[in-house]
Formats: sequence, C-alpha cells, structure tokens
Amino acid sequence: MRRAIYPGSFDPVTNGHLDIIARGCKLFDEIIVAIAVNSDKLPLFTAFERREILLEALAEIDAGECRLIVEDFEGLLTKYAVERDVHAIVRGIRAISDYEYELQMALMNRRIEPKLETVFMMPAEAYSYVSSRLVKEVYRLGASVTGLVPRAVERRLKEKFERSHDGKPQSHAK
Amino acid sequence: MRRAIYPGSFDPVTNGHLDIIARGCKLFDEIIVAIAVNSDKLPLFTAFERREILLEALAEIDAGECRLIVEDFEGLLTKYAVERDVHAIVRGIRAISDYEYELQMALMNRRIEPKLETVFMMPAEAYSYVSSRLVKEVYRLGASVTGLVPRAVERRLKEKFERSHDGKPQSHAK
Amino acid sequence: MRRAIYPGSFDPVTNGHLDIIARGCKLFDEIIVAIAVNSDKLPLFTAFERREILLEALAEIDAGECRLIVEDFEGLLTKYAVERDVHAIVRGIRAISDYEYELQMALMNRRIEPKLETVFMMPAEAYSYVSSRLVKEVYRLGASVTGLVPRAVERRLKEKFERSHDGKPQSHAK
Amino acid sequence: MRRAIYPGSFDPVTNGHLDIIARGCKLFDEIIVAIAVNSDKLPLFTAFERREILLEALAEIDAGECRLIVEDFEGLLTKYAVERDVHAIVRGIRAISDYEYELQMALMNRRIEPKLETVFMMPAEAYSYVSSRLVKEVYRLGASVTGLVPRAVERRLKEKFERSHDGKPQSHAK
Amino acid sequence: MRRAIYPGSFDPVTNGHLDIIARGCKLFDEIIVAIAVNSDKLPLFTAFERREILLEALAEIDAGECRLIVEDFEGLLTKYAVERDVHAIVRGIRAISDYEYELQMALMNRRIEPKLETVFMMPAEAYSYVSSRLVKEVYRLGASVTGLVPRAVERRLKEKFERSHDGKPQSHAK
Amino acid sequence: MRRAIYPGSFDPVTNGHLDIIARGCKLFDEIIVAIAVNSDKLPLFTAFERREILLEALAEIDAGECRLIVEDFEGLLTKYAVERDVHAIVRGIRAISDYEYELQMALMNRRIEPKLETVFMMPAEAYSYVSSRLVKEVYRLGASVTGLVPRAVERRLKEKFERSHDGKPQSHAK
Repeated sequence: MRRAIYPGSFDPVTNGHLDIIARGCKLFDEIIVAIAVNSDKLPLFTAFERREILLEALAEIDAGECRLIVEDFEGLLTKYAVERDVHAIVRGIRAISDYEYELQMALMNRRIEPKLETVFMMPAEAYSYVSSRLVKEVYRLGASVTGLVPRAVERRLKEKFERSHDGKPQSHAK
Repeated sequence: MRRAIYPGSFDPVTNGHLDIIARGCKLFDEIIVAIAVNSDKLPLFTAFERREILLEALAEIDAGECRLIVEDFEGLLTKYAVERDVHAIVRGIRAISDYEYELQMALMNRRIEPKLETVFMMPAEAYSYVSSRLVKEVYRLGASVTGLVPRAVERRLKEKFERSHDGKPQSHAK
Repeated sequence: MRRAIYPGSFDPVTNGHLDIIARGCKLFDEIIVAIAVNSDKLPLFTAFERREILLEALAEIDAGECRLIVEDFEGLLTKYAVERDVHAIVRGIRAISDYEYELQMALMNRRIEPKLETVFMMPAEAYSYVSSRLVKEVYRLGASVTGLVPRAVERRLKEKFERSHDGKPQSHAK
Repeated sequence: MRRAIYPGSFDPVTNGHLDIIARGCKLFDEIIVAIAVNSDKLPLFTAFERREILLEALAEIDAGECRLIVEDFEGLLTKYAVERDVHAIVRGIRAISDYEYELQMALMNRRIEPKLETVFMMPAEAYSYVSSRLVKEVYRLGASVTGLVPRAVERRLKEKFERSHDGKPQSHAK
Repeated sequence: MRRAIYPGSFDPVTNGHLDIIARGCKLFDEIIVAIAVNSDKLPLFTAFERREILLEALAEIDAGECRLIVEDFEGLLTKYAVERDVHAIVRGIRAISDYEYELQMALMNRRIEPKLETVFMMPAEAYSYVSSRLVKEVYRLGASVTGLVPRAVERRLKEKFERSHDGKPQSHAK
Repeated sequence: MRRAIYPGSFDPVTNGHLDIIARGCKLFDEIIVAIAVNSDKLPLFTAFERREILLEALAEIDAGECRLIVEDFEGLLTKYAVERDVHAIVRGIRAISDYEYELQMALMNRRIEPKLETVFMMPAEAYSYVSSRLVKEVYRLGASVTGLVPRAVERRLKEKFERSHDGKPQSHAK
C-alpha cells in the first residue's frame, strides 16, 4: 500500500486543493490531508473548523479506490510524515513563484528525511490563480467565490463575515 | 470614447507610474488614476495627500488629448471599474515577480468581471527598478530620490521626515 | 480612431490567437492581423494559405464594432506599423519564457520607433499551453487538435498531411 | 499494481536521469523507461545503443522492489502510455526553463489523455546542471564526465569519439 | 589592494554565506563582512551575538591571502561602502526570486553610487536551499541543522531555544 | 595581479559587452576578452574580423588601469582559462533566461575546474535588451543600430550587407 501526505494550511480549502487531491488519488492508495496547525499565524478558520470543512468537501470528490484521511499536525512535516509511515509528500504547483519556494522546501525536507520524496502535480488550468489568500481577500471585498471553493467554504465564509458589521470577521481564530 | 483605469496605492507616485500613465494616454481617451484606499495597510501619505501629490505631478506630464482623472476607491477594483464604465485596467510590469502576481490578479479580476480586460505596459528601462517601497526606504536612509519621483513627492518626503527627530515620520497616515 | 497591429507567423492561427484578437477588439477600433512573411523560416502553410485560413477564422469571432484586417508584411515590424499608422502593437503573453522574449522585442521596437507602444494581453487560461508549434507537432503524431484551433485549420491540416504517405507534408511551403 | 512511464531521448542517459528513476522506484511498482525514437533529430547514439546503455546502467541502481523495463516508442507519448496501461508520466525538473516547457507539455498531454497524470520529481542538487546535451558538448571539447554519467556512457563516448580524427563522431546515428 | 563588502543580516550566518565569502576571497584582497543593523526588524540574535558568531565561524574558513573584517553598519549600504573605500558589493544568488530582488537593489545602489559595482557569485549547489530564515524555522521545529550552519551557530541556537519552555526564545533580540 | 577572462562569440561585440568590460576593469588588473572560435556555428564575421572590431572598440572605452587583451580560443573554456592563469570568468546577465543558462554553465565549469570562479555583473539598464543576434536581425531588416554597437561594428555591418543585393551577406564567415 502506498500512502502520501498532502500538507497545507487549508484556510480554507479551495477547489484547486481538491483538484490536486483527486489527481493524487490516481497514484496513491491513501492520502493524509494534513492541516498544519501553526500557532504563529492567525488563521481565519480554527483548526477544528478547517477539519470540518475538509471532511465535508472531501465527501464530494471522486476519490476512486483511494482512502482519504484528514489530520492535524504541528511541528516538522517530515517528522510527522515518517511517524505516519508515508512514502511521498504531494504538492501542487501553479506558478513560478510557487515552484521556487516549493523546491527550496522539498530540498530541505529531503535533507532532513532522505527517504521521503516530494512529488509535484499540476492543478487544472482553471485553478491556476486560486489561492486561499486571494479567495479570502476578494470575498471580504464583496466578490462571489462560487466555483473557486467548495460549497462548505462558501457557507462558512458567509457565517464568518456576517457576524461583524465592518465586513471583517469578529476575531481571528484561536 | 475609451476609458481605462490605472489603480495603485501611489504611496507615493513614482516616475515609473507617471511613465506608464503617459504611455496609456496614447491608447485611451480618458484614464482614471485610482488611489486604492485600503484601511489595513499603513501608508506613509494619507489618501488626501496622495491625491494632492498626484494632481500636482499629473499636471506636468504630456497627456496629449487624454483626460486624466484622480479618484479614491475602496473595496473591489472590478466593481469600481464597472461603476465607472471602464474598458480596461492598465498595469505596468517591470519584472518577473511583478508579472506573476499581476497575472494572478488579472485572471481573478477577469473571472469576477469577464468584460473587463487588463492590459500590461512596460515602463522605460530607467524605471525598471523604481518602486514606491524602495523610494521610501532609500530616502529614509538618506539617499536622494531626485529623478525617481516627481518634485511634488520630493518636497513632501522632506516635510514628512523633517518633523521627527529619529529619521522617521511622526506617525503613520490615518 | 485607434488602430492596433497584431503581428505573428500564424502558421497556423490557433484559438489562443483568436482569443487575443477578440480581447483586443474591446480596446481598438481596428486591428491589423499582420502575417510575418519571413523568407528564412520554412512554414507549413504558405503566406497565401495562412491568409485564407485567417480570413475564414476571423469571420467566426465576435469582433463587436472592431474592424479586422488581414495583411502580409515583410521586414521590420516597426516600419510597417508606422506606415500603416498604427498606435500600438498587441502581443499575447502565456508564460514567463514568452514574457522575457516579448519584453526584449518590445524594448527594441520602442527604441526603433519610440511612439509605438506594445500592449500585452492575456489569453484565457484554457489556451495557456497552445502554440502553433505544439499544435503541428501533436497533430503530426496523430492527436486531435479540436478545440485548440479553428475548424479552418483542422481541415487544412488534414489536407496537408493526407497528401504524403509518411505522415509528413509533401514539401514545405514556399 | 502502479505503473509509470519515464520518457526521454536518453542520448545518452545521465546520472540525473538515473537519480529520478531511483526516486520514482519508491512510488511505483513498475517504471517503463521509454526511449523516444524521433526520426527528425540526429542522435549521437542509435536507439539500439541507447537501449543497451540503459540496460547496463539500470542494472547498477537500487530499484528496490520496483521493476524497470526499457522500451522504444515512436509517435505520441500519451497514446503509447495508454496502450501500455500506465498511470502516470514521470518527469524530472531541474530549472525554471525546464519547468515551463514541462508544464506546457503536461497540460497538452492531459488534454489529449485526461486520465494520465504527470508527476514531477526533483533530482539531487548535484545533478541540477547535468543534461545530455551539455555532457556531449563538454566531452567533445575534452572534459571528463566521470560522475555525471554511468560508466557505460563513458565507455561508449570514448568509442564514438575515437573513431574519427577531428574530435567528432564519424557520422550521426541512423 | 581591492576591497569588497559582503553585506547581510547574518541572523545567523549559514554555510551558504561562508561559502560565498571563501569564493570572494579568491577575487579580493580584503572583504568586509558587514552586519546590517536594522532597528525595524526583530532579529533572533543581537548584533553583538551575530558579530561574535561570525568571528568564530570565519576563523575556520580557508581565506587564503584575503583579509576578513567583521563590522556593523546602519543606514545606507552604498554610503557605508564608499566611506570604507570599497570597490565592489558581493552578493550570492541562489534562485530566481533572489536574483530579481538582488538586481533591483543593485540597480538602485548603482544609481545612488555609480562607482560601486555589484558582483554576483554562486554558492555550491549543496547550499542552494539554505537561508537564515529556513534554518531558524526548521531548528525551532526540532530538525538538526548540522552541515547547514557553522558549529558556532548550532551551539548558539541550542542556547537560545533552551531558555524557554515553549520551544521559542524568551524574547527577541534588542 | 588579478586576471579575469570575458568569453563570448562577439559576433559582433555590442555596447552591452563593452559596458560589462568597463565594469570588470574596476575589479581586475587584466581582462582577456576571449573570442570563442566554434567551428559548428556560422558567424556573420570571421574570427579575424571580430578581433579587429574588438581592438578598435576597446581602444575607445575607459579601462582605467586595467589591461585589456583580445585573444581567440577553441575548445574548453575552463582549460583555456587555466592555461592563461586566470582567476575568474566574467559574465554579464541581462535577464532570467540568460541567468538560468549562465548558472548551468557556471556550475559545469566549476565542476571541471573547481578553482575557477564565475562572477556575474549587470550591464546598464539601457543595454538590457541588446544582444548580438538581435542587432544583426534588426540591422538586416533596415533598422539603425547606432547607440547599440560601437562605430566599428556599424561600419562593418554596412560593408557586409552592401556586398549582396538581397539584403543578406554574400556568404557566412569561414
């Protein structure tokens, strides 16, 4: 059995992420979608919310025979991947700037854990410009994000931004 | 009549911006120079100051038959552009890193408002390294910025940085 | 009246080219689609064939109020553009490698003819990987190019490659 | 069982190629190393020689449980991959310029055969600058290529270039 | 005598920095390793600590005939370089993103001080992904950084992170 | 004494090359401008002509104390550089695409001859788009190249292209 890990902040998950997961399912028997819980960043959604959204969104993609697991992790990705007995880290690449950062991280990860390979996959062209950051930014300014994120995210974004009067969520996730 | 919008923070406007505006004037009958008023960022100059500087600087460029308008806008650029009945968004590109970010924004803007086109223009080589951020940084450290910004900016920078004793402006613009 | 020129080899025209032309039509009153007749290169289609294909393909795009003209040119693009009283050169950019070459050409063209501006536009994401070269290559190897080129090109490719028995056209265009 | 294809000219195979194959072996049960036989290019080594070299070189890498197969193919990669019942195309990426071309090809291949995924893997840093072209170029000029190519290639290069008196092989491979 | 300056934050110095310094020693008679003391950033190590580490690390590299000097500087690099009678600024380039930023800075520095040249040198491939930021990040998460930084840095990192209980240093350097 | 080599085809030398040589003169006591005589390429100017042009052009630049030498070389650059007792290879970088190729060559050269360093320098912005190839191309099509190349090149180009009636030189250099 071949198991891969697909790490990210998923704050929130986008259709670009889901596209990569579905493509990864063609290559691996099991994919751990691993939510990075980094106490330094201020996410919009709590780790708990991000996990709930992912579970709901993953239920709607065509994973074929592939088993999808959602987990949180803290600390070093490579250490977590080894503990979970993973063969490969899956990363999506959209653009050159992604690519450079991803390569730097992949080389560092390979140095820390030489057995662990990073494989890069391409999302569909339609998602080449979709990022969690941009989705949050344009939603906050009033644009629709239908088609860019799963329905679970649209509903949650609506809830987050309705609570406050100034177009911002009342507080950052803790 | 063809109307374009040239959006930016213009904190402050540089000769690179003015060069792009002058070039855009060859293609459009009217250009709205639109100051993005983003409450999250801490600009050096207030929106009011940035508008004053722009009006003074634009008076000195050769706009030919083209009408130049300075406006503030808040929120979604595409929404504002449509309200103002604009045909195209004009953006200058200097470098690869610009280019990637600009393409991502342009694709998102096209998705939100398919009728709106983004056109990219090149500043003169002499301005290929000039950005508002770098101008502020080197001025603060004591370098001359003559030739990189219009005179209105030089005078205002001088005023800003004279007020305080530690080489920094007394406070950020509100 | 604002007139632009969209130069290229168009050997053959792709849906990516047609997409850029349709977008250019929103900005200009007239676009000259200018076929570069370069005696050094060995094109698959003769200049005459390329012109016929373009005329047929352009008849099917939505050009709005914009007038589309197909012409041949030889020699210096900037000289031709000035003779035809053009305001701007339109170029599509798909990728970084395009972008660098295009910028170099645009700077050279600006130096030769400072009044002439180059504007860059983005094709739809769906065409980000479509080039004349790649279309010919995969068609020759037996892949369908439906959706990547207009029907006129599909028909002509079929004619070209049927004439010979080894999967190649009988001779290069003269 | 998961089967991948690793296509290339392998004219000749380098240690960079072998490094990618060994890494691919961690992810797939079987890898077809597929020599592209393109009648247009003039290779240094014949398809037969390239296959002999590959078989000799592959015998020395640590493939673990993975089965390695060497085959020739002509025509469309995607068609060949489907005939051979392959799940994924493996490609190595060394640099930005690689990356752009690879992405363009991968998008075209995906369009021709949507079920086929392309996965990108990174060679070790030590091979980031090694290409078949550069190996041939510096060998021809008299530099040692030990450490950049397997021993089988070194021996064959020696044979090729000894036959002629002007430092070039007597004739291109047919 | 030819004197160069190698500026940086060195928070902390990495083996990539030391590699560039050793290479620079082949070209210059004297290199000033200049620690940028920027009151805006929050470094992990104080300027004093960074200087101590550098002195210890530089004692272990092979500088040949080249004299190495460690100094602090504040304000404009170009002004400092001229005061110290320097011929060239040495910068290492690892990746495209580095390269673009470095070029922009080099052009600005050249404009401020036309006599001062910037020369770019390449670190060994083994250090192509090593940055001070990444070293601190992976060390904080528990990875070893042996081989990426000199021993002086390893020892200091250990001291910094032991003082606190939550895996972070007690306070930022002042 | 520090000696560098500045290799190239110089077919013909441009003002961009001369700019890099003048900048290199600030760093080195002697620079060998080394004309690569590659029997495979078809140059416009013979090696003899290229040397004559270089000697004439170098006489007009401000080299300060630096001694400039023009030489031909054939074969491996690194071998030639070592024979001539050189400390460094000087290369100009204009754009990303340059940069990638240059890095690849520099890493290969370093592997062949570890003692030899490659240093990269930036030409003035005004020359960022000037290459020998583009100069020949636009001259052939009828554009002026004044300001892009030294006068010696302008005169020689005129001679080359006058000899033939079809706008091309009568024959390639042998």
